Amino acid sequence: MNVLCPLPDARAAEHVDELLTRPGLRITRIVSFGQASPPGFWYDQDEGEWILLLAGAARLRFADEAEARVLRPGDCLDIAPHRRHRVEWTDAAAPTVWLAVFCG
Amino acid sequence: MNVLCPLPDARAAEHVDELLTRPGLRITRIVSFGQASPPGFWYDQDEGEWILLLAGAARLRFADEAEARVLRPGDCLDIAPHRRHRVEWTDAAAPTVWLAVFCG
Repeated sequence: MNVLCPLPDARAAEHVDELLTRPGLRITRIVSFGQASPPGFWYDQDEGEWILLLAGAARLRFADEAEARVLRPGDCLDIAPHRRHRVEWTDAAAPTVWLAVFCG
Repeated sequence: MNVLCPLPDARAAEHVDELLTRPGLRITRIVSFGQASPPGFWYDQDEGEWILLLAGAARLRFADEAEARVLRPGDCLDIAPHRRHRVEWTDAAAPTVWLAVFCG
């Protein structure tokens, strides 16, 4: 299995694939293509989430920070449970591929 | 934090960095530069290990398979606990970057 090739066409909607599921652990691949969180929506998750941007570009905003973080390939970020966040932007010109490791 | 840039110089020895540690979960980055497992050595691990090659190239051999698997960027692989394996080869001309998620 290769997480970068082939990629599903995510123009119409984000694609989420489970890569591994173990007790207390889920690894997923998310492919975005211009999608962002709906206006006013914030993720507020029971699980911790560790993300690694594999391709593309995104802006992720934490509710407790004034500015969105720009994410480029190789950037990783640990999101603590219930730390509210949203995806402000993903590149509309090319796929953005996220690896997300959920734990707890 | 970016897992691809900057990279430590791994010519003399592999570099292992812990990116995240949670109960039952460890995410590490391994940077190789031509290293391979010693002749006759097999990993035999209590933990499950999920790997994702982020850069470079490698050949990974399972003891229960006749041929080594060639790994390119984006290739991922689930290694069950105690499934014996070894790294037969990593590219000696450029860094090979592995993401390894250990669980259990």
